[in-house]
Amino acid sequence: MKAYESLEEHFAEFYRLQEIMSVLRWDYATTMPAGAAKARSEQFATLKSLIHERVVDPKVGGWLEEIGDGEGLDEWQRANAREIRHLWTHTSSVPSELVRKRSRMETRCEMVWRTAKEDDDFDRLAPHLQQLLEVTREIATIKAEALGVDPYDALLGWYDPGMTAEKVDAVFDDLAGFLPGFLEEVLDKQARLPEPANPEGPFELERQEALARRLMEAWTFDFDHGRLDTSLHPFCGGYPEDVRITTCYKEGDFLRSTMAVLHETGHALYSRGLPKQWRTQPVGRARGMSVHESQSLFVEMQVGRSQSFVHWAAPLYREAFGGSDEAWSEANIHQLKTRVQRSLIRVDADEVTYPLHVILRYRLERELLGGDLEVEDLPQAWDESMEQLVGIRPQNDREGCMQDIHWVSGIFGYFPTYTLGALMAAQLFEAMSQEISDVEEAIEEGNFGVLREWLRENIHRRGCLKSTDALLREVTGSDLDAKYFKEHLKKRYLDEQ
Amino acid sequence: MKAYESLEEHFAEFYRLQEIMSVLRWDYATTMPAGAAKARSEQFATLKSLIHERVVDPKVGGWLEEIGDGEGLDEWQRANAREIRHLWTHTSSVPSELVRKRSRMETRCEMVWRTAKEDDDFDRLAPHLQQLLEVTREIATIKAEALGVDPYDALLGWYDPGMTAEKVDAVFDDLAGFLPGFLEEVLDKQARLPEPANPEGPFELERQEALARRLMEAWTFDFDHGRLDTSLHPFCGGYPEDVRITTCYKEGDFLRSTMAVLHETGHALYSRGLPKQWRTQPVGRARGMSVHESQSLFVEMQVGRSQSFVHWAAPLYREAFGGSDEAWSEANIHQLKTRVQRSLIRVDADEVTYPLHVILRYRLERELLGGDLEVEDLPQAWDESMEQLVGIRPQNDREGCMQDIHWVSGIFGYFPTYTLGALMAAQLFEAMSQEISDVEEAIEEGNFGVLREWLRENIHRRGCLKSTDALLREVTGSDLDAKYFKEHLKKRYLDEQ
Repeated sequence: MKAYESLEEHFAEFYRLQEIMSVLRWDYATTMPAGAAKARSEQFATLKSLIHERVVDPKVGGWLEEIGDGEGLDEWQRANAREIRHLWTHTSSVPSELVRKRSRMETRCEMVWRTAKEDDDFDRLAPHLQQLLEVTREIATIKAEALGVDPYDALLGWYDPGMTAEKVDAVFDDLAGFLPGFLEEVLDKQARLPEPANPEGPFELERQEALARRLMEAWTFDFDHGRLDTSLHPFCGGYPEDVRITTCYKEGDFLRSTMAVLHETGHALYSRGLPKQWRTQPVGRARGMSVHESQSLFVEMQVGRSQSFVHWAAPLYREAFGGSDEAWSEANIHQLKTRVQRSLIRVDADEVTYPLHVILRYRLERELLGGDLEVEDLPQAWDESMEQLVGIRPQNDREGCMQDIHWVSGIFGYFPTYTLGALMAAQLFEAMSQEISDVEEAIEEGNFGVLREWLRENIHRRGCLKSTDALLREVTGSDLDAKYFKEHLKKRYLDEQ
Repeated sequence: MKAYESLEEHFAEFYRLQEIMSVLRWDYATTMPAGAAKARSEQFATLKSLIHERVVDPKVGGWLEEIGDGEGLDEWQRANAREIRHLWTHTSSVPSELVRKRSRMETRCEMVWRTAKEDDDFDRLAPHLQQLLEVTREIATIKAEALGVDPYDALLGWYDPGMTAEKVDAVFDDLAGFLPGFLEEVLDKQARLPEPANPEGPFELERQEALARRLMEAWTFDFDHGRLDTSLHPFCGGYPEDVRITTCYKEGDFLRSTMAVLHETGHALYSRGLPKQWRTQPVGRARGMSVHESQSLFVEMQVGRSQSFVHWAAPLYREAFGGSDEAWSEANIHQLKTRVQRSLIRVDADEVTYPLHVILRYRLERELLGGDLEVEDLPQAWDESMEQLVGIRPQNDREGCMQDIHWVSGIFGYFPTYTLGALMAAQLFEAMSQEISDVEEAIEEGNFGVLREWLRENIHRRGCLKSTDALLREVTGSDLDAKYFKEHLKKRYLDEQ
């Protein structure tokens, strides 16, 4: 089928350009001297426009039409055509002029945000956020029409194809009903225990890095196809042949850098495990941001903060830094890794409160986009939600509604994926435990290859062959359900079996 | 003038793609994990073809025609149109199919060379080199016709626009007449002195790097727009906003890594000093590979091996490694830096013998391309020339005609630029000494900013505004002439004033 072959060839080039983009991004975050920022932003713009041209190329629409329902194609090819159609509809439905307009507004709004946040001056940010919101609404409406979905679902579906507000509501309402009360219980229980002690630093950065590499190796990270470096914020970049993760070391805290490394290693294993023969095609990419996050949280949260993991890791920590006192004990390290606190800042939040931060943002962004909340009323709405959900009230907007970069850089519909990923991670861990009887033993022995293999077989190597729903049902026997996550929390934080 | 503006816009994108290519190349040489080689080669191919498309775009020809002799344009714009015409004629005259054919042959020939060299098996390489030679000849003939020059000059002019075999012959014949006898004299003189002693290592790599950075800083290398890293072979990559040099450290020899850093710093200063407002246009790029090499050799050879430089640097060397015995004395270090030896390998050759290695290659590649020498007869011709020019005969082809990567990767017409650069460096240093009376004093004090400023004003910031000939005449008052280099050698190696 010639049309299909043309599509594949076309998208192979598209992904090579994406790969190049990811090298430039990695370089920007880890390596580039500051003075090159302007040149780099011009390179980004050039590359971005070449990539965009390829997706919206009218030829793609023609080929897709010719392919129709994909008769004569095999399962993977049909799925590939479906993914291309999704990408193409999402992208080509929006007039280029509008894309450029949003891009300019994003740059401007993010720039204003940086100083407005520093000065705690929401009023300065508000008009820019308002404009960005309007153009986002306009784009969401156009996409919604082309895709035959609701506008918010069009935004959500860009990051997590197939996800809808209806599905999100179902699990988030469940969690929002459960977590505040659960949080009280956990805090009560913690209050009855002695405070965990912090191991005493400083912790040499070279040793932190060596420890990080040790953890990555235990997870079978392939250094022949990947790297570990440092950047201001940890991330996982690159592509399957060259997966590059970063972390950020602080002399006073080695747990933070190593937990970040575990998180990014989860992303990296996913990327590296994607189906090799489809690497330059949409069907061979990650299933979506929720599934991606499920992989990082699987490694960081499900495994990395478990009792079994600490049993294996605590001796490594002691060895890495020559620690020996009580603060280095398995029990204390586990207590540190599972400490729960009401906090204002999402990125610092623990496993229990994190979903509340996400639910707050999800609800507010839907109200903003739906016109039920005005930008000027955002700070108050934020503070009230925070008090209601997390039980703590920000004293300023810097630690309130201005803390995140997402909205001010035009990213709406992304926040839910963090918590959807957490739910999936719990659901997957439960399914794995059903299939592999000695998971905890494997973890205690640091034998993560077994877990990695299960994830690779069940998730990674399937790329986008199935929808997220179908994948979850096949692998876990159930639709996305918050109960696995809730059970996981109860077991970990209240010792309930 | 609309046509001219279109040209500028078109080439701005062209250079942004070139910049991206240079980031990928740097990453490939310094950072990329080995397993990503295949993906990277696909990225290179994609980008290369996008870059090529932009140069050969028929629109460029149309705009150039419209611009004609550049009436209404200012001096820089006219020069830019001239440079674009040169680039366009060179590139668009060759059919794309022939370009692809050569590219395949280059890859293949270079691959065969790697193992054939290891096994010292020229016969295995010969047929591939033969094919590559034939396609190079074909391309040279096509370009020559389009440019109205001789075929070899078309190859030479790709690296050094305006350069011709006639000009090369003039200076190379002069040198070839002078150097063998001069070499005898220098070796005689050296033989009468005690052997210089090698400072005793090992020299910690971190200290070598710190020393390298110290030297770069003294030369005003701008680390806000550049980097120093390590790679297998030293090079200077990047672009004016982000100039990245590399070196290669060996525990047993710190002079080698630091001299390489000085060499690459010369290239880097040139790149960084190019006219800012023209950075994305052909007129704003380096004048050619000979001028580029003149800048690196200016820093490494003219300055970096001078008595004055060693006077400044020897204490730094001692400080860096805690050296104190006689081997660390100014006199001994200078003796090491100016040691002359007959040697087989070009890249290890000293300042005196290096041009002989180049002349040998230049003459042989002209004979090969002109059909006066058959590939099968190359080893013998090489060995005989080597004996005649350098006075030493290779025992195998690995250290003979198979030592360099240039020919086997399709690079013909490049070798002369090394020595043309050396001649220009000497000529420029002489001109600078006429203008700045206390050059030696500045060097003795490590005040290289003065020299950098002179180079920037006279060479760097002028980009491609003038031809190399015109530039040299303006700055030095003379055409390219080997006499300055010869005088420099006589002064440095025979103490003749």
